[in-house]
Amino acid sequence: MAFRLTPSDTSFFDLLATAAQHGVEASRLLTDLLGARGEEALRITEQLRDVEAAADETTHEVVRKVNAAFITPFDHVDIVELAAAIDTCVDEIESVGFLIGLYRIPDLPADVVAVIEIISRMAQVTADAMPRLQSMKSLDDYWIEVNRLENQADQLYRRLLTQIFDGSITDPIQVVQRKDLIEGLERAADSFEVVAQHVEMIAVKES
Amino acid sequence: MAFRLTPSDTSFFDLLATAAQHGVEASRLLTDLLGARGEEALRITEQLRDVEAAADETTHEVVRKVNAAFITPFDHVDIVELAAAIDTCVDEIESVGFLIGLYRIPDLPADVVAVIEIISRMAQVTADAMPRLQSMKSLDDYWIEVNRLENQADQLYRRLLTQIFDGSITDPIQVVQRKDLIEGLERAADSFEVVAQHVEMIAVKES
Amino acid sequence: MAFRLTPSDTSFFDLLATAAQHGVEASRLLTDLLGARGEEALRITEQLRDVEAAADETTHEVVRKVNAAFITPFDHVDIVELAAAIDTCVDEIESVGFLIGLYRIPDLPADVVAVIEIISRMAQVTADAMPRLQSMKSLDDYWIEVNRLENQADQLYRRLLTQIFDGSITDPIQVVQRKDLIEGLERAADSFEVVAQHVEMIAVKES
Repeated sequence: MAFRLTPSDTSFFDLLATAAQHGVEASRLLTDLLGARGEEALRITEQLRDVEAAADETTHEVVRKVNAAFITPFDHVDIVELAAAIDTCVDEIESVGFLIGLYRIPDLPADVVAVIEIISRMAQVTADAMPRLQSMKSLDDYWIEVNRLENQADQLYRRLLTQIFDGSITDPIQVVQRKDLIEGLERAADSFEVVAQHVEMIAVKES
Repeated sequence: MAFRLTPSDTSFFDLLATAAQHGVEASRLLTDLLGARGEEALRITEQLRDVEAAADETTHEVVRKVNAAFITPFDHVDIVELAAAIDTCVDEIESVGFLIGLYRIPDLPADVVAVIEIISRMAQVTADAMPRLQSMKSLDDYWIEVNRLENQADQLYRRLLTQIFDGSITDPIQVVQRKDLIEGLERAADSFEVVAQHVEMIAVKES
Repeated sequence: MAFRLTPSDTSFFDLLATAAQHGVEASRLLTDLLGARGEEALRITEQLRDVEAAADETTHEVVRKVNAAFITPFDHVDIVELAAAIDTCVDEIESVGFLIGLYRIPDLPADVVAVIEIISRMAQVTADAMPRLQSMKSLDDYWIEVNRLENQADQLYRRLLTQIFDGSITDPIQVVQRKDLIEGLERAADSFEVVAQHVEMIAVKES
């Protein structure tokens, strides 16, 4: 059961846009982290934790607002689940930042950089799509693009996994660390696809 | 909210049957891959990718058809989520195929073969159950069987994990690879249980 | 769509309380396992399997009862999904017990003990919350506490992961085993947060 937008509901879309913006910010910090060393790297991972905490706060605000509202633009549960799915994206990106800081892998493969670029792009198209939830227009473009990007990330994941086991890395602990890092990246990319699936489900209900 | 079947809805069951048939095909190819070498193995992993792409296409067709339909045999979201869950089974089987190709583990343990047989059986009972969604009859048998098979797969997973760490494999990179492969198999078995849970939830709603 | 409680529905809350009690029992056995050796350890892992089987049985009873009931205290699907989420907690705890038995890691870090204490606390607050589903009162306290505990567990997970890679463990197979164990603990802690999210969603619907 869904309700059409009334003027007072605009704030839900604003909040979802804020939530998605945390994802953009987190992916920007992750990109910055790639080139950072020492103190600067530490500062960026702290900023990532701050963004993660801010994203949590936004999610709680969504829950509070949904609980206080009688009429919401769509199903109460869908709004909360969408906000939670966006929150998970920020969590996953922050986790990757933690792993980069922990493992300090020298000369990260170019494909890792490429996956982080894809994640940044996913975060951006997700943030761009949030205001379109209001009219439910042009959302197809969004999830088609997210699926395309997730497929790209998946291909890079497989190439990275193949590289890890091509014999060039002989230290097994390095193997474990690199595998852990690329699995974290894959989870981050997947989490944006889950957001797109939630949006698609909302569109299915509204159709 | 659910609607009883009308003649025009038959196509949804056909589509879900097609989706599940991709799972049968994927598990057949995975079985073939076990005995294949060289060029033939490459050809089979390519065929697996084709089946995975065909499964994606079927899922999109379900979404399109649901969006175009006013009345569907059950809740719009449930049909889409069921199709997506079946799609995940094919994805997981294809991933296992990729890992078998990547790691080329010599003399795979008999229990790996046994798990793949269980996955094939899960795919078959899932495909067999799809037409029964129409009448909602004899579905209990289906999910009891899937649960039973998943329990078997889980026991084999534990035995395989125990074997990996029994001291017979001394190369840690081999340990990592074998663990990755059996985790992929476990995810594939789990994914069929998730399909059964979706079917059970639909039955709960219809009851 | 939700229905307020009628006297005959009390049994659903009793069943959910029983389900959550399996989680308390499982976490108690996991704590006992930490100090056990030899025969006693074997006996405890067997008891864990029994609790896991009993939890499965309770979940099936919930499904049967929901299917037989016309009116339930809240949405049929929500009750079944909540029961399934609690069941997953028991599964995850039992898996950790299996891994402790398999890897027999000498001198487990104090932080592992601390995470298991957190999981026990999560199990207890979950069991305490179940009767409050009836009135839907004081549930905020419950999920705020679960979130707080999950954050603590996550910080300990990161500290444990950092310890694994600080150079003190030189055997890569030990690295793989310890990483597997702490990932299992993290999944167990997460599973209680998922239960809290289900409860929160039910509250969102009821609001």
